[in-house]
This record gives sequence, structure tokens and C-alpha cells, in this order.
Amino acid sequence: MIIIMERNATKVQIQRVIDFLKDNDFQVRRNVGEIHTVIDAIGDKTTITPGRLAAFEGVKEVKVIREPFRLASRDRNPEDTVIEFKNGVKIGGNNKPVFMVGPCSVEADYDGLLEIATAAKEMGCEFLRGGAFKPRTSPYDFQGYGEKALQFMKRASEATGLLTVSEVMDASDLPMMLDYIDVLQIGARNVQNFKLLHAVGKCNKPVILKRGLASTIREFLLAAEHIMYNGNMQVILCERGIRSFDNAFTRNVMDIASIPVIKKYSHLPIIIDPSHGTGQRYLIEPLAKAGLVVGANGVMMEIHNDPENALSDGKQSLPLPMFKEVMTRINKFTNNLRYEEQCLSANVK
Amino acid sequence: MIIIMERNATKVQIQRVIDFLKDNDFQVRRNVGEIHTVIDAIGDKTTITPGRLAAFEGVKEVKVIREPFRLASRDRNPEDTVIEFKNGVKIGGNNKPVFMVGPCSVEADYDGLLEIATAAKEMGCEFLRGGAFKPRTSPYDFQGYGEKALQFMKRASEATGLLTVSEVMDASDLPMMLDYIDVLQIGARNVQNFKLLHAVGKCNKPVILKRGLASTIREFLLAAEHIMYNGNMQVILCERGIRSFDNAFTRNVMDIASIPVIKKYSHLPIIIDPSHGTGQRYLIEPLAKAGLVVGANGVMMEIHNDPENALSDGKQSLPLPMFKEVMTRINKFTNNLRYEEQCLSANVK
Amino acid sequence: MIIIMERNATKVQIQRVIDFLKDNDFQVRRNVGEIHTVIDAIGDKTTITPGRLAAFEGVKEVKVIREPFRLASRDRNPEDTVIEFKNGVKIGGNNKPVFMVGPCSVEADYDGLLEIATAAKEMGCEFLRGGAFKPRTSPYDFQGYGEKALQFMKRASEATGLLTVSEVMDASDLPMMLDYIDVLQIGARNVQNFKLLHAVGKCNKPVILKRGLASTIREFLLAAEHIMYNGNMQVILCERGIRSFDNAFTRNVMDIASIPVIKKYSHLPIIIDPSHGTGQRYLIEPLAKAGLVVGANGVMMEIHNDPENALSDGKQSLPLPMFKEVMTRINKFTNNLRYEEQCLSANVK
Amino acid sequence: MIIIMERNATKVQIQRVIDFLKDNDFQVRRNVGEIHTVIDAIGDKTTITPGRLAAFEGVKEVKVIREPFRLASRDRNPEDTVIEFKNGVKIGGNNKPVFMVGPCSVEADYDGLLEIATAAKEMGCEFLRGGAFKPRTSPYDFQGYGEKALQFMKRASEATGLLTVSEVMDASDLPMMLDYIDVLQIGARNVQNFKLLHAVGKCNKPVILKRGLASTIREFLLAAEHIMYNGNMQVILCERGIRSFDNAFTRNVMDIASIPVIKKYSHLPIIIDPSHGTGQRYLIEPLAKAGLVVGANGVMMEIHNDPENALSDGKQSLPLPMFKEVMTRINKFTNNLRYEEQCLSANVK
Repeated sequence: MIIIMERNATKVQIQRVIDFLKDNDFQVRRNVGEIHTVIDAIGDKTTITPGRLAAFEGVKEVKVIREPFRLASRDRNPEDTVIEFKNGVKIGGNNKPVFMVGPCSVEADYDGLLEIATAAKEMGCEFLRGGAFKPRTSPYDFQGYGEKALQFMKRASEATGLLTVSEVMDASDLPMMLDYIDVLQIGARNVQNFKLLHAVGKCNKPVILKRGLASTIREFLLAAEHIMYNGNMQVILCERGIRSFDNAFTRNVMDIASIPVIKKYSHLPIIIDPSHGTGQRYLIEPLAKAGLVVGANGVMMEIHNDPENALSDGKQSLPLPMFKEVMTRINKFTNNLRYEEQCLSANVK
Repeated sequence: MIIIMERNATKVQIQRVIDFLKDNDFQVRRNVGEIHTVIDAIGDKTTITPGRLAAFEGVKEVKVIREPFRLASRDRNPEDTVIEFKNGVKIGGNNKPVFMVGPCSVEADYDGLLEIATAAKEMGCEFLRGGAFKPRTSPYDFQGYGEKALQFMKRASEATGLLTVSEVMDASDLPMMLDYIDVLQIGARNVQNFKLLHAVGKCNKPVILKRGLASTIREFLLAAEHIMYNGNMQVILCERGIRSFDNAFTRNVMDIASIPVIKKYSHLPIIIDPSHGTGQRYLIEPLAKAGLVVGANGVMMEIHNDPENALSDGKQSLPLPMFKEVMTRINKFTNNLRYEEQCLSANVK
Repeated sequence: MIIIMERNATKVQIQRVIDFLKDNDFQVRRNVGEIHTVIDAIGDKTTITPGRLAAFEGVKEVKVIREPFRLASRDRNPEDTVIEFKNGVKIGGNNKPVFMVGPCSVEADYDGLLEIATAAKEMGCEFLRGGAFKPRTSPYDFQGYGEKALQFMKRASEATGLLTVSEVMDASDLPMMLDYIDVLQIGARNVQNFKLLHAVGKCNKPVILKRGLASTIREFLLAAEHIMYNGNMQVILCERGIRSFDNAFTRNVMDIASIPVIKKYSHLPIIIDPSHGTGQRYLIEPLAKAGLVVGANGVMMEIHNDPENALSDGKQSLPLPMFKEVMTRINKFTNNLRYEEQCLSANVK
Repeated sequence: MIIIMERNATKVQIQRVIDFLKDNDFQVRRNVGEIHTVIDAIGDKTTITPGRLAAFEGVKEVKVIREPFRLASRDRNPEDTVIEFKNGVKIGGNNKPVFMVGPCSVEADYDGLLEIATAAKEMGCEFLRGGAFKPRTSPYDFQGYGEKALQFMKRASEATGLLTVSEVMDASDLPMMLDYIDVLQIGARNVQNFKLLHAVGKCNKPVILKRGLASTIREFLLAAEHIMYNGNMQVILCERGIRSFDNAFTRNVMDIASIPVIKKYSHLPIIIDPSHGTGQRYLIEPLAKAGLVVGANGVMMEIHNDPENALSDGKQSLPLPMFKEVMTRINKFTNNLRYEEQCLSANVK
């Protein structure tokens, strides 16, 4: 249950509710918001009913959380979460969608990366993404350049003003990565690597959490819950396709409907990654637009200055000239969307 | 292989190619187009190579079909198929998307159906859809009103000018149905009922073919091929969701990417059915828009004058007032889309 | 609800229960068994509770059917269904598992078919299977020899004493097929072709119903229900693999657990088809044994006298010498199984 | 490529092959076996063909590895891997299948664990399994007792002579765990947690690797390859069900065919876990037998002294009396199997 206290509830009133819950074997979590203190209580609702709690002084409202995810639930937090960066960029809510672009892997060539970052900046993108540690199905494939790649990312960020995103694969890399990176990414294969979720949950840094290939929507939101439960509320979800019986034409099936579903049940921002979702260059633009039209708060795309020679995922990366054309059309599309009177958010909630 | 003859190729030249192919055990099919005669030849390409055929007089070009579907393939027919109806409505190509709306099942109440049809007409829709024969998972569920339902459909069509769509489940019903219905529909469960595909393949009536819950894109196009192979080229594909491991929030997963994939590999028009695809009323609008933005040639939606009491699928049907709001926004959205300089079609092909 | 009448219930008592149910808008179906009359009633259980019915004279027991399938349900019929053929062969219950073997398609060569049938008989198999009408994904593939194939089947049956199994694809073929065939087969692609299910439901001939590639267990049993609801209780289910995300090494995933699940919830016999289930010759023997060990009442296998030149599915057919070796081991295995004190049936029910 | 040297090849001959490969940019790995030295070379086969290498003195045979997994491949190692424990227990090859049983989570009650272990020993099982660190979908569920649980495991092991198995979730726990545990387990959710795979790859301790819910067979073997590539060849695979579209009656679908497929393509031992695979107590026995009959080298089962009050997975655990009955029948079954003349291994390879 969620107990929302009155805006002028006293500390004594709040403590009384908490003590009562603890005496009845509830796990309790207090969240002090700008206006209301909210108490999150987990326990046996047959012992203490919501009605019993509503009778305490200073209690404004008691809500039952219907879904197993709690902190991520819109029941608990009806307003969209908005994450704001040092340079004023915002993700979530009614803010303009953001674009995160870059190579699958950062390579040994800094000039190439700078060329990519410059094109990204020119086209209005906010984030440079690039892999330093690559989870690869085979141990014989390229595994990433590690810290050197992150240094390149930071240099390119300083040169262009872009924020940086990179995947973390191991909790022990976190302290080092925090120096270089503005957004940590958890990859699809680690969506239920709970130790890693707990570790990023203890960082004060936004986290992009990618949906696993076989994650149900509920499991995906529970993975976010693992991060939030450890204290980090800055979670950005990412739909990147799920596994289906047909991979002849696309690598995965993009579950576009998951975006409005998640918007309905959760307050977290969600972005879309059509590069990994489809594995096909020609599908990036249409799927990016499809995601935006159903409410995605951003798009992640793989782009490359020399896709033919990319160390990973070249085939699904947009070459820079094509990226500029695609981005020009997407920017125009996004601007039109904004005049659509926010029909979607009105409709969905 | 496809052998495209010169526009001024003589009958003798054409016959010579055909005879040569037949002598070498190829199956041959001649298609006389407005400009070119095209010969479709199936056989052992190691016996007769494309180069050998290109050397014949009057041959303009020889193409190898890379996909197992041939008549449905864009290799064979680079231009989009456009289907035109008696009242001038067109589906496919760069024509404005069409809308097919109505109840899941036609019910015993003609006035209700007329109310639905009137609302559909008012909102600019072109087709009234309604089930007369319902494929139901359980034999204990309502199976449709049969011919009586089709009579109601025809009356509502005459009253409003809408074209009609209804599902055929049995070849023996076809002669009767052809009197009432403008578009035959093959349901998802019958996508590989080849006898039924062959039967509608022999009708001179457009056919909507719904993707099966476990159809790969290739199998889906091969099911269309079964219809076309029997002579009926007026096939409209319909993406309506596939089965996945997660049905907690949506009944199926809509494979939005299948639309641009199919546009790339086939010339057939394709529409989207977000009602069956998601099973959720609140997802119809966003998914319809997602489909349109990636190039769908139309949308099928379930609407109902009294969804609480519908005999089937009430939960996923839009009540009429909500339908009007949704349709107003979709119409506006579609009009904006058309100013997008056809980026999609340019990009996808 | 199922109302089981006492063994000595009078006609008047039975009629009184039926009238009462009909007066309260229940659909009623009376089944006269050897010992008990059973009344199957479908309607609103809040209007008439089981307790209300139990109070009628002559009523032995009232059971609520928890699953949507009723006639197929073990709740309704606790004893295994056993199907007996003219020559004394039985399928189901504790009877020895049966073996149905033969070519995917019957071909133009009767001698080849006779060679197969003779080998089958020699190895103790009871049924010859062979396709006359082939559902093929592509219209360009071989579609079967039709009635001629069935004539060959009947000749081979007369020569060897084997019973015959063949797939029906169209209700209009049924009258002709009934002359030739002892068991009708409904293929996986037609598992929800309800018109065909209804048609075989009106035949007095055992039916093998194959699970669809995307059929849930519940849908599969409801498809059987469509047949039974039309009067034919002689349904044999067949597990033949479902579609999954991995088809690199096997064509489908065999859901071996579905066999004991279905044994628990239904009284119908179930067989296993490892040829279609795996698509790999080397997997037929181990998967056949796996099916038998969990309770399958029979095995269907593709065998061929000349698999290299088979018109369909040659790769997954066992050549005759390999078939004899495999069958020798399976027969030995099956004999051992029978000494296992029926632990499975005891455990599963 | 795999270069197998003659048994009497000289050091100079071996070095010459290695130098030649390295000069041509191949990655080289030398494996000194009891009889042959084997050189594993990865690089561009168009530069150096197998024939070129076969011409070197001292080379017995050059094999091309067709699958992306190499160390795990049967091409490279035709003999089954057998893992032997300090007490003489062996897994793999033609050795008697092993049984690993115990509670899902080790709980606060040592006496309960000892009761379980005593029953396991009595029934002839070799391993006690129990979770100390539990990967749980929700952060609100019980996460395991950690080191205390491992201490209990070790005490129970010393009391009974059973070997111990427990899951590792974090590389940093490894040094501590190695003191208590005989076999490390990697859970299904961590099957592509490559950092963890690398960490256990550096341990000298057998590892059970569970198949992921959406792992293809190829990805599963490549995950094993990540462990082996880091030096640890003692990998035991575990089939525990994959995700499908139907979870109404079973939690997952057990892919029984994966066992003979993996036996064909890999030399690693593989066990089956029907408790997690089905999530249903009544399916453990039949699925365990199905796994054994297709060649599984062992079975993992959840059993519990008090399943009603288990902290996790009680519903799928066998209560001890039922475990004893099941195990009695399985032991008898396994003994019979062994007289089956190893038909399976003969057939499958």
C-alpha cells in the first residue's frame, strides 16, 4: 500500500503511521517529496486494511498497488518522471524527444568518433552513445576497447557538448565509468543480472535499462524496480525488440505497443532502439517514427562513419549521409507531432 | 525466373521463349500487361540459365526471383498493386489510407448496425466490417448469425454508401456471400487453410488475408501466393499481431516492422488491425497511427454502439463517441502525414 | 456443470432435471452411458447452483467443469477413452502403444508403398499413414496425388492387414475418403479450421487431431471439443511440436510435457509425431521413447523406401533398414516400460 | 581449424606449425592431451587452407570446425567429457546418471536441510543443491541467506557425504563460495552475463550452466564457450525449459530434443531440471524420465521437507515422502535403461 500524507502532516503523525505498520510486520519505506511524504508499506493486507490506515490523523489517501512493481508504478506516482541533465536536457513527460546516436562499439579511431559526434550535434541530437565493453555471444568476437573507448567518448563529448551513454557490464567498472559517462546503460542480456541492477541502483546517475529478449513487460518493470529499490529513481526504459519465431527479415520483433502500455502503468520515461530492434538499416526511420507516435521519449540509433568496416553491427548502422537525411525527416516529423495536442498522453492515461 | 519481353516483341518471339522453356520442363505462366508481356517460369536454373534466355530475340530482361513467393514479389512487379472499387475507392500505392470499421459480429439488431455504419460514414471511413460467420476457439461461444447478418450488412451498405467486408470460413458459402460483400476476409486461423485460399483465388473479388498467429512473413506471403496462383491478384494483407510469450497486457504482439518489410519485398497493399492485434481499446489509436506512419494502406478497427453487451470482443471495441474522437485525431494525423513528402516509400523500396 | 444421475435413476427423474435446466436457459446435452446417464449443462451458475441440482431425486453427483473444454475433460469422464478398430486394435487407456508409419506423401509408385507397408507390418506396426492431399506452404510444391493415393493406401492395407490414416483438408473430400481410410487426420494448419472440425465431427470415424504450431494446450483441447460437440467422440490428439524462437537444429520444439498435462486434464488418447516435431531423422528414436515414457498412446513416424527421392520430407524420413533397427529397439523399450507398474498413470491422474 | 598432431610429433614440429599460423595472423591455442597435442587456430581460412597445414610434418589431421563454438564442439573433441569428483562420482559419458536434489533456497532451519540431505543420500542421490543467493524477479521477494546458507550446505554435506551445488550470482562471491561448494551453478538469467562466465571460467571447479529462457542452442553452447575459453573445461549444461506462448499449465516448455541435439554437437555433459522446467510437482517424474531416455547425464530436482512453508518455489518441490516414491521408480527405470545396449549413444552420435 501507498500512504500519502497530508501536505501539512506533522512528523509525529508520520511516525505514528510508520510505527503502526512496523508493529504489524510491514516493510516500510518513507519518501519525502516536495509536497507530500509518501509511505510505501509492504505486508499482509488482511492484517491491516487500507481503511484502517486511512483513519490515522494526517493521512490524505491510501492506495493499493495492483502491480508487483511499486516504485515504478503510475499508481504510486501519477506524474511522469522527468530526468534533467547538467546542460538542461530533459527526458520524459512532455519534453521534446531526445536522440542518442553513435557507433555500436567505440573503435580505435578517435577522428571517426569525432566525425560521428559532430554530425550528431549538427542534426540536433543530445547524446553520443558508444560501447566500451561489448557483450558478445561468442568469445571470439571483438569485446570492446574498455577505458580507452570511454576516454574517447569524453573527449568527443567535450568537443561537441553532447552527453554520453555507454553500457556497464560489471559493477567493478562503475567507479571508473562514472568519470566518463553521463548515462549508464544496462544491456538486454543483463536485464535480470540483479547484482548489476543493485550496483547501478546505488549510483547517482541516470540508467538506461534495455528490455531483455524474453522479458515480459511485468518482468521488465520489476527489473527497473530492482534499481529503484536500491535508491536510484533515474531509470529510462528502452524497448529494443523481443525474440519471436521469425527472424528471417528482422533480428527481433519490436513490441511497439509496449510503449503505450508502459506509459499507462508506469511513470518512467521510455525510449526506443530500432537499430537493435530490427537489425536492418532501412527499418530504422519507420520504426523510430512509430515509436515516437505512440509516445516514446527518445530514440537510440546506431550510426557510423564507416559502417563497412565497423567492428560490430555495421550492417544495421546508418552511414552518416543517410543519418543526416533520416534525421532531417525525423526532426520535421517530431515537430509536427508536437502540434498534435498531446492526444496520446490524454488518451493513454 | 521472370522474363520481361520488349514492348514490341512479336507473338512469334514470345511463343519461341515459351516453347523453349516448356521443352526444358519449366512450368510457364504468361502475363500480358499493358506494355510488356511477362513470362513467369519455374524450373531448374542449372539447366537453363538467365543468360541463355536473355539471348532470345524480343527479351528485354530476365530476373531471378529470390524469394519463394513469386506473384506476390516486388521483384516481379515493382509497382504497388492498387485495388479500385466500383465507387472509386482505392487501396494501395500512394492512395489515402482506407478505414474499415464495424462490430466484431453483426448482431440481431439492425438499427444498431445502421448507427455504427452512419457514424463510420460521418467520420470518412470507406468500409463497414462485420462478422457473419465467427471462428471461435470454443464451440460454446456465439458463432455468428450467418446469411441474416450479411443481409443486414448489405442494407447498411445501401443506406450509407459504405463498402462491406466480412469473413469467409467455408468455400461452400462463397456463392451466397458474393451477393452481399465487397471484400472477402480470410481470418488468421485460416491463413494456411489452402482449400479456402484456392477457393477465394478463383473469385473475382478483393480478399483481405490476415496474418496467422504463428505465420512468418515468408509463410504469410506464400499464403497470398496460393490465392494469386489461382488467379485472384486482388489481395490485401493484414497485420493483426502475432503470438508471443507475453499476453498479460496485450493479447498479441503487433509486428509493426512487418509492414515496411512487406512493402519492400511485395507490391501488395497491407493494412493493420490494432483491435485484434492488441485486444485493448486504449491501444487502438496509438497502434493505428504507428501502422500508418510506417506505410500501412489502411486500418481495420472494431467499433460498437453498445460494447458492454456485444456478443464478442466488446472489451476491445471502441464505443461510438470514443470512435469519433479517435477518428478525428487520426484523420488529422493522416492529413499531416501526406505532406511528409512520401519519405517512407522513397526510403523503403 | 455435469450432472451424473444414479445408475437406477428413472426416466422421469432424468427428464425433471433436464426440464428444470432448460426452463432456466441452460443448454442441455444428455449422454447415456453404460451405467450412468450424464447431463451436461451450460448456463449461468449464479442462477442455478450445483447444490440446487444435487437436491433433485436421482442425482448422484454434480460436478463443476473448471476448464472451457467439457466433453474432452477428465472431470466429465474420469476413465480414459479407448478407441477400438474392426481388427481388434485399440488406442488409449492401458493398451499397448500403437505405431503409425509410412511416407509423408503417397507417391506414384505402388510397389514402393507396399514395400513400406510390408516392413511396417513386419515390425509390428498397426497403421499405415500416407498423405493424399498435402498442405504445402508454397503453391509451387507437390500437393499430393489425391484419390489415386488413397486407392494405393487401401490396396496396401488389404495386402498387409494394416489400418490406414490420411489427412483430410476439405469437407467435400470426406465422403470419398471414408471408403478408403480408417482414421482421418486433421493437420496442424487446420487445427482451428472449424468448418472442417465440424465436418469430421459428423463422421463416424476416428480422427487424429494434430496440435497447431501456435496452439496452447487449452486451444488444442477446445479444437477437439469442436469435433466432439458435433457428435464424434473418437478423437486422438497428436503432439507434433510447437513453434519457438530456435529452429536452427530442430524444425519445432516438441512439448513433451504436454502429454502428461493432457492426460491429467483430458480422457482422450494422445500420440506423438517426432518426425514433424523435430524434422531430423536422428531425433525420431529418442523423442519417440521420450513420448512413450511420459504416457503417449502411440507414435507416428515417417518412413520411406527411397528417402533421397521422396517428393516431400525425405530428410526427416527413416529409410527402411534404419526403421527396422529403430523399431526393434523401440519395441524392446516398450515391452520393458509395461513392467514399470504403470507408475505414470498412477502418478499423473 | 583444429590441427591434431601425431602422437610422436616432436616439439620442433609442433612449434613450426604454431609459428606458421601466428605469422599468418591466426589466433592459436595449444592443448596438450594425453596422446595428441591439438592446436586450435582461428583466422582466415582463405589465407591458409586446411590442405596447406596438413602438409606439415607431424600433422595427423586438420579439421574445420563448422559451428561457432569450438572448445565445446564435438568436432574438436569426439569423446564425451567426464567430470570426476573427489569422492569418485563421475558425470558424463556412459556413467550412471547423477541426481542433484534439495530445496530451492536454503532456509534458516538446519535440521530441515539435514532431513532433506539424509533422504537424498538414502535414495542414492549424489548432490545436495540449495540456493544461498536467489535471483528473484521482484526485489520484494526473499533473496537468500547468503554465506550462512552455504555453511549449512557444507555441514549437511559433511554429515551425509553428498557433494554440494549452489548458484553464484556475483564474481565477488566466488572466493568465499569455493570453500563451501563442489559445483558452481550459473542461473538461467545469467547465461549471458559474460563477466560472470569469465570469472567462473577462471575457477578450477565444475560449473553447471543453465540454459536461458530465450537461449538458442547455439547461444547456449557459446555461453559455455565463454567459460571454457577462460580455462575451465568442466562445464555441465542444464536444460531447464524455454519460454513459449503457453504458460497456462507449465511454467516453461522443456526442450527435451535439445539434449540429443547437444549430445550430437558437443562433448559436454548435460542434465535436466524438470522442477524449473515445468513448475509442476506432478510433471517432475515423467519429464525426468524423458530426459534420461534421450541421454541426460543427470537430473536436478527440487525437494523440500515442508513445501507448504517454503520460502520459494514450494509448489514445484516434491515433499520428501513423494520424493522417495518418485526416486524409487526412477532408480528402477534408470537401471533398466542401462541394459538397453546404449542404443541412444550409438544412434545419436
